[in-house]
Amino acid sequence: MGSFKGHALPGTFFLVAGIWWTGKYSLWRASRRNKNMGSTRLASRTSQRRLEVIESSVVLFFSFVGMLAEQFAAGGPRLRLYDSADQHWEQLMNWQHATMYLFFGLAAAVSLLVHSWDAAPLALDRLMLAVAFFNEGFIFFYHLHGRSMLDVHVHQLLLFAVFGGALVAFLEVFHRGNVVLELLRCSLTLLQGSWFWQIGFVLYPPRGPEWDLDDHNNMMFVTMCFSWHLAFAMLVVSSLYCTVSCVVRSRLRRTPPMEMGLLKPRDRDPESEDEIL
Amino acid sequence: MGSFKGHALPGTFFLVAGIWWTGKYSLWRASRRNKNMGSTRLASRTSQRRLEVIESSVVLFFSFVGMLAEQFAAGGPRLRLYDSADQHWEQLMNWQHATMYLFFGLAAAVSLLVHSWDAAPLALDRLMLAVAFFNEGFIFFYHLHGRSMLDVHVHQLLLFAVFGGALVAFLEVFHRGNVVLELLRCSLTLLQGSWFWQIGFVLYPPRGPEWDLDDHNNMMFVTMCFSWHLAFAMLVVSSLYCTVSCVVRSRLRRTPPMEMGLLKPRDRDPESEDEIL
Amino acid sequence: MGSFKGHALPGTFFLVAGIWWTGKYSLWRASRRNKNMGSTRLASRTSQRRLEVIESSVVLFFSFVGMLAEQFAAGGPRLRLYDSADQHWEQLMNWQHATMYLFFGLAAAVSLLVHSWDAAPLALDRLMLAVAFFNEGFIFFYHLHGRSMLDVHVHQLLLFAVFGGALVAFLEVFHRGNVVLELLRCSLTLLQGSWFWQIGFVLYPPRGPEWDLDDHNNMMFVTMCFSWHLAFAMLVVSSLYCTVSCVVRSRLRRTPPMEMGLLKPRDRDPESEDEIL
Amino acid sequence: MGSFKGHALPGTFFLVAGIWWTGKYSLWRASRRNKNMGSTRLASRTSQRRLEVIESSVVLFFSFVGMLAEQFAAGGPRLRLYDSADQHWEQLMNWQHATMYLFFGLAAAVSLLVHSWDAAPLALDRLMLAVAFFNEGFIFFYHLHGRSMLDVHVHQLLLFAVFGGALVAFLEVFHRGNVVLELLRCSLTLLQGSWFWQIGFVLYPPRGPEWDLDDHNNMMFVTMCFSWHLAFAMLVVSSLYCTVSCVVRSRLRRTPPMEMGLLKPRDRDPESEDEIL
Repeated sequence: MGSFKGHALPGTFFLVAGIWWTGKYSLWRASRRNKNMGSTRLASRTSQRRLEVIESSVVLFFSFVGMLAEQFAAGGPRLRLYDSADQHWEQLMNWQHATMYLFFGLAAAVSLLVHSWDAAPLALDRLMLAVAFFNEGFIFFYHLHGRSMLDVHVHQLLLFAVFGGALVAFLEVFHRGNVVLELLRCSLTLLQGSWFWQIGFVLYPPRGPEWDLDDHNNMMFVTMCFSWHLAFAMLVVSSLYCTVSCVVRSRLRRTPPMEMGLLKPRDRDPESEDEIL
Repeated sequence: MGSFKGHALPGTFFLVAGIWWTGKYSLWRASRRNKNMGSTRLASRTSQRRLEVIESSVVLFFSFVGMLAEQFAAGGPRLRLYDSADQHWEQLMNWQHATMYLFFGLAAAVSLLVHSWDAAPLALDRLMLAVAFFNEGFIFFYHLHGRSMLDVHVHQLLLFAVFGGALVAFLEVFHRGNVVLELLRCSLTLLQGSWFWQIGFVLYPPRGPEWDLDDHNNMMFVTMCFSWHLAFAMLVVSSLYCTVSCVVRSRLRRTPPMEMGLLKPRDRDPESEDEIL
Repeated sequence: MGSFKGHALPGTFFLVAGIWWTGKYSLWRASRRNKNMGSTRLASRTSQRRLEVIESSVVLFFSFVGMLAEQFAAGGPRLRLYDSADQHWEQLMNWQHATMYLFFGLAAAVSLLVHSWDAAPLALDRLMLAVAFFNEGFIFFYHLHGRSMLDVHVHQLLLFAVFGGALVAFLEVFHRGNVVLELLRCSLTLLQGSWFWQIGFVLYPPRGPEWDLDDHNNMMFVTMCFSWHLAFAMLVVSSLYCTVSCVVRSRLRRTPPMEMGLLKPRDRDPESEDEIL
Repeated sequence: MGSFKGHALPGTFFLVAGIWWTGKYSLWRASRRNKNMGSTRLASRTSQRRLEVIESSVVLFFSFVGMLAEQFAAGGPRLRLYDSADQHWEQLMNWQHATMYLFFGLAAAVSLLVHSWDAAPLALDRLMLAVAFFNEGFIFFYHLHGRSMLDVHVHQLLLFAVFGGALVAFLEVFHRGNVVLELLRCSLTLLQGSWFWQIGFVLYPPRGPEWDLDDHNNMMFVTMCFSWHLAFAMLVVSSLYCTVSCVVRSRLRRTPPMEMGLLKPRDRDPESEDEIL
């Protein structure tokens, strides 16, 4: 994947995932908060499960496509692992990327199972997501041997986003439905996506001059740039969250539920699960 | 233990332990979930305790045998620690392995005590398991000095499984009965077992050519291979879990309990301890 | 910011923040504990929110001023990032400091939003504070390359206070209102403030001789000195806490609320949230 | 403190503290578990507080004595920190040890305050204990520069016990009264105490030959020896716990409380705080 496109592609996937998750969790929370205004039709338990099943299927499909592409695209190993004639491993890079896709595929498969079969413990989907992120970071971590300084550095910064995401997903096993953790995971996924693009631009600039990969000033700039990406990701997440909240509210106001005159709206209930937790 | 058999033996123990635990926890959870269908006879509190006592006794026995084997098998130190004539330590390797067995034996003894005596705090068995895993990782960690690159690397990867198991067991002190943590521990134990076998095959290949222990490509392959072992362990655990769940369900359907007509089955109760936790 | 003033300025800010927070949390806890004596007028929910809004606005304002100062003060980059003529980055130091201010500004903005708009999850303000502290530490961490030994060491010690603050703020996401965590965060903020002053005195002594930056004894002294700062910070926090508690108590005694004769004061209720948690 | 006595002294203190704590927590838990048999006279809330106050006073006293001894014993710095004539720091070792004592003194002072004054949050005593342990480890951590290999190694092993103790005490802030954590802290304190003695015997053998401080086999033995100390500490703690439990039980059986005929003894209540937690 040593190319601009090889970094832009996963970056795009993570960007899409981050935005999709932000929208999903914002919508669910907004409808939970406005329960007394009849918003349950927006996010009933059944519709939530259907959404999860669709999401998992899509992820599963793309993981499968990704694995196939890594194996059979031009220059891929075509499922051959070891060349015993020449005594060397075949295209280990492609195999490693396929392994990363494999774990995201496993996470999606488990999520599919969990949300369509009753006997499976619900929290398994977050655990598998955490394992998938961890595995991605784990392979990247041992991926960096013998590269130039800036190359190592940009990938190390990526690890903050990846392991951060794994940690947050693992915490969600215990604090499921905590909106703060969910939004943090969305931000870290967005960060990961945009940082993949940034890595592409730094290591394989599509036009313009090459970067000096051993200049310490470049390293300092790149570190700061990572902070900016994080700030940008958080800005995107919070604007999306606010937009969704406002839209849900104004829509519900226009179409009052039947029991509206009977219940007085609770604007803020400090005992609700997701605020106290 | 620098031999193929020396790695295959503990590997087999951990594989057996992982599969046994998976079956145990799956059965208990399945019978908890189907309480209203009369499944309590499958896993009553008394039978659970009896099972724990038997399991602990078996572990205790094998730890003891392991310690004796390390001491008195051919080439063992026979309880001599220091040779004052030649001024050197006697067979430190064997002593270290015996120490690892000692801690698993202690964990089993405490578990035996906890499940047969009322005054002992229940969570101690998980704490001691965590300590036993931690101690194993701790000794391995200081075990690796001056070996070749690949040798160090495969043992470092083992540490992920070992310390991961210790961490999960420690978390279970606070979240006892959380099925997600239990299955994760089972996966990590299986991973540890199969990885021991892998180490044996890499460092002491029973047939075929030796591995080049300083080749960086080998290291990259081995890292990826560890991910595959993890995926495999998770697959085994989940298929076992599904099988046990289905078998318990279908059995209970065939032999309906007396009050079946009175209670309607709760297919999913989202408030149950092990899902929310 | 390589100057005495450049370290004294943020140090002063953190000192003020630490003292302010200590006072605020002490007052709130004292009034919570003396609820039955009518102290709710001191810290009603409305007045608490008003205070939070004012605090956030002030922080937002100073962050903005800080960013402007870093950009436009003498020698600042004036928003130019890259000098394409000379092919070098413009004043990366100033840009990095501005980035730190940016994150504290973001945290303040989110806090403002959270406390003035109902739909936002309350715990976001602590999360953003944790992110701001983490970002500060993150940038400092990659800031130290190629400096002399003592310079690196004093900044590494600073990281203990910074990352400690980030960790405590993150824990507060889950344990909001836990006074022990709040006071710990206050201590760590004070520690950070006074240590900034100490760094100024060590690296840029305003008068007296220069320090030998490569002497190992200096390093040992500085380590111990950090402990003293921590002890000092904890002393200040606890004396402030005691003073506020006593003042609130004695004031309430003098102005008895109406229902005083009816309720007997609960001197200690061990079930209250912030003691058990 | 570079002497055998200098390590045996703190070792003895920690050994005494570990045994004392084990006895205290075992007694309290035994009397909590046997509440219905009238054991509350053994550990009423008032007597518990009195015990805590006495314990804190004793610790405070010895910390003070320790600080004085470090300052004024033969070769101490007598409160002089810097010799401006010769331009060197005075006896930094002694100052560092005095700083460690200072933090244990602070912890004792806070514990005294917390248990004798109602307005202070109870969990502060555990927090301060965690800070005291952390500070001890922190100073040791930067203490090891430029020593020989084995010297560094035995002190690093000590750090496991010290930071482990700090972590457990910090967890107790959130899980106060969890007997598993309390017993773990007792074990780690005992481990620290006996390891101080071991360090003394390794680095300053009172009789017999010197150890070769650069021999790798010695290092491997010492690592294993640390495990044995841990096993030993856990054995001591568990035997003490069992003894106290049995004694309390048998004593209560002989002197039945008045309401014994009315209540049937609950042998095991799985809902009790300290088992589930």
